[in-house]
Amino acid sequence: MFITFEGVEGCGKSTVSEIVYKKLLEEKYNVILTREPGGVKIAEDIRKIILDKENTKLDNRTEALLFAASRRQHLVEKVWPALKENKIVLCDRFLDSSLAYQGGGKNLGVDEVLHVNLFATEKTLPDLTLLFDIDPQLGLDRININKNREVNRLDLESLNFYNKVRETFLDLAKIYKDRYVIIDASKPLDEVVSETYKIICEKINGRS
Amino acid sequence: MFITFEGVEGCGKSTVSEIVYKKLLEEKYNVILTREPGGVKIAEDIRKIILDKENTKLDNRTEALLFAASRRQHLVEKVWPALKENKIVLCDRFLDSSLAYQGGGKNLGVDEVLHVNLFATEKTLPDLTLLFDIDPQLGLDRININKNREVNRLDLESLNFYNKVRETFLDLAKIYKDRYVIIDASKPLDEVVSETYKIICEKINGRS
Repeated sequence: MFITFEGVEGCGKSTVSEIVYKKLLEEKYNVILTREPGGVKIAEDIRKIILDKENTKLDNRTEALLFAASRRQHLVEKVWPALKENKIVLCDRFLDSSLAYQGGGKNLGVDEVLHVNLFATEKTLPDLTLLFDIDPQLGLDRININKNREVNRLDLESLNFYNKVRETFLDLAKIYKDRYVIIDASKPLDEVVSETYKIICEKINGRS
Repeated sequence: MFITFEGVEGCGKSTVSEIVYKKLLEEKYNVILTREPGGVKIAEDIRKIILDKENTKLDNRTEALLFAASRRQHLVEKVWPALKENKIVLCDRFLDSSLAYQGGGKNLGVDEVLHVNLFATEKTLPDLTLLFDIDPQLGLDRININKNREVNRLDLESLNFYNKVRETFLDLAKIYKDRYVIIDASKPLDEVVSETYKIICEKINGRS
């Protein structure tokens, strides 16, 4: 069972995924929580190039190809082996982030970026994608409250960009309605956590 | 005018391209000679990951995506600006190497690798591709004579692999016969150089 967490910056998906992961562990589910590059050396090396603030000349298509390469390696070394052992894999961001950020936000085209990513994943798609939907302004405000967080190159994008990313995620939720569930991430954390946990348990236990 | 030099290891294309480049310079042609990553920092960083002998877990599709990413950045920062200035660009390896090595040699499929590369190049293809065709055994023998050359990960492939690469190049020459010219690279160097120079001059001067 392959479950992905998606949404714009500050939507809370990382916090929620960690809490839900612990709850599932307590309930003795055979589960792992990961995110690209996920401790996979080659994927880490690739991510360093993407996030390097010195790399101001990084072209959008180069970036999309690097994300796809990092995704591929993480899939091969970490996700597929876990799925093969029948583990539940919770993944903080996956292919849909590339579709929304590079395809929509940076105007490379969702279909074109999808094609590159299907080459990378050999057509592996998540069984369930949880979209933590929030107004990007609210998400960015949440991030800025946490002053300790280091700002990287991707954070320097404009609000207009994040609005396009959100719209693309919402479009994807319509296209892939069989695997997508939209969660209102503007609600208090405990409500978001219990809704997320309920949806995942229903999926795991075959009730959705 | 965008001219690429292709062929298996030891075919002599790098030596030939350097000699032909100098001859064109002497004849006052506005020409540059480059090869991926071509001194482009981001492309160099990407290449380091591909060629790192420690990265034994590098997946074939990850590798293909990294080559496409490196190609993209080299194109954006170096090839396109030169073409825009009406320079003749001689490039030692380009997209066809990925088709032959990853698509054919590593069985990822020529069409699939082509699609990823057309995303990278936004459908830019060379005006002329010179295929330096040679029996791979002869090419590898030539390389091994040069003991000073450091062996990298890609050299560790088998002869069987290089035979598949050669066959794929020859197939590509049939598919893209408008831009491909096959040169018999088993001939003495001076003959190969003069044939190459003649073909390029004819192309530049619009006589082919």
